[in-house]
Amino acid sequence: MPQQFTTDTLSLSFGMPQWAVSALNDLPEYLPSHEERMAAVIEFSRKNFQNGTGGPFAAGVFERDSGRLVVIGVNRVMPYNCSSAHAEIMAMSLAQKMLGVYDLGGEGLPAHELVVNWRPCAMCFGAVLWSGVRSLVIAGDGPELEEITGFDEGPVHEDWRGELARRGIALTEDVLRDKAIEAYREFNASQNVVYNARQGEA
Amino acid sequence: MPQQFTTDTLSLSFGMPQWAVSALNDLPEYLPSHEERMAAVIEFSRKNFQNGTGGPFAAGVFERDSGRLVVIGVNRVMPYNCSSAHAEIMAMSLAQKMLGVYDLGGEGLPAHELVVNWRPCAMCFGAVLWSGVRSLVIAGDGPELEEITGFDEGPVHEDWRGELARRGIALTEDVLRDKAIEAYREFNASQNVVYNARQGEA
Repeated sequence: MPQQFTTDTLSLSFGMPQWAVSALNDLPEYLPSHEERMAAVIEFSRKNFQNGTGGPFAAGVFERDSGRLVVIGVNRVMPYNCSSAHAEIMAMSLAQKMLGVYDLGGEGLPAHELVVNWRPCAMCFGAVLWSGVRSLVIAGDGPELEEITGFDEGPVHEDWRGELARRGIALTEDVLRDKAIEAYREFNASQNVVYNARQGEA
Repeated sequence: MPQQFTTDTLSLSFGMPQWAVSALNDLPEYLPSHEERMAAVIEFSRKNFQNGTGGPFAAGVFERDSGRLVVIGVNRVMPYNCSSAHAEIMAMSLAQKMLGVYDLGGEGLPAHELVVNWRPCAMCFGAVLWSGVRSLVIAGDGPELEEITGFDEGPVHEDWRGELARRGIALTEDVLRDKAIEAYREFNASQNVVYNARQGEA
């Protein structure tokens, strides 16, 4: 018998882990500096694999100027069987839901910033462009993430900095780079599973 | 008072429109040819904007060899206030949920194919790589989509064909290209809203 599609089979739902609910409530309402924002994000990335609730990635949405915390999301690929449930997608989607907008840079809103514990992967780089955030803060870019963890980051556009600039998204790099790398090394030592797409198999 | 985070504020949910539930149940269980698969996808893309349930994009996941329909998803950006709710992300996430896997190319599964009514945008191109699909079928690529509809497709990697090939994802192009373009022209004439990210604003 062919499959019957229902409203239920055609629905998706995602949540953050219980520890993240508590940890978000424990954070101050405002994190004024980039370092404070990144430290919180890195801490969430670490808690995520320590608790077995996803990969070593977190992303925070903040009001750019005031530092008001909107939300921090974490990678949920494995718990939800969803290869798109990267931290950036979770964080930006949650922020958009909470604010009731599909454009975080829309009129009447304060400018929003995304803070991530490495340069977003090929998919998430595109998602950043579409989200409406006006600034992106990353702990670093370069081969270390792939080398340490084994994750494939995919084909980000060669002129990714220019593509951000052309869309009015300011970039701040190398914020707590060493601390981010330290967390990746800890992840690597933890024997967690690394999921990558197929590699050239037929 | 600072915001209180709860399990509920930290959750996301997405569904397909009611018409899509019926339309999926009306389709045959198997669509053997690429043309049949693409015709169904284009029809869903058209119904989506005609019904005011999202943008003119749809994506279908099929078993590559048999043509068994797994699911067709449509763009849900505006209804769900989520800039990442593109058709490809919806379709691949639904297929992964229905099959209980984060890797549609995992062991023991038949090869899966994604069929889309144009080349995926920068974000969705990355999502295709991470999904585990073994083949991608597109109606076309090139400037027509952006020119007709005004949508920004973003910086897809220059060697996108090579990046697919390196990950073992076969590409089939120009399937029902004219029919896809016809639907975009119809969308353009319909006065629907086109959402794009900020363009170089501060």
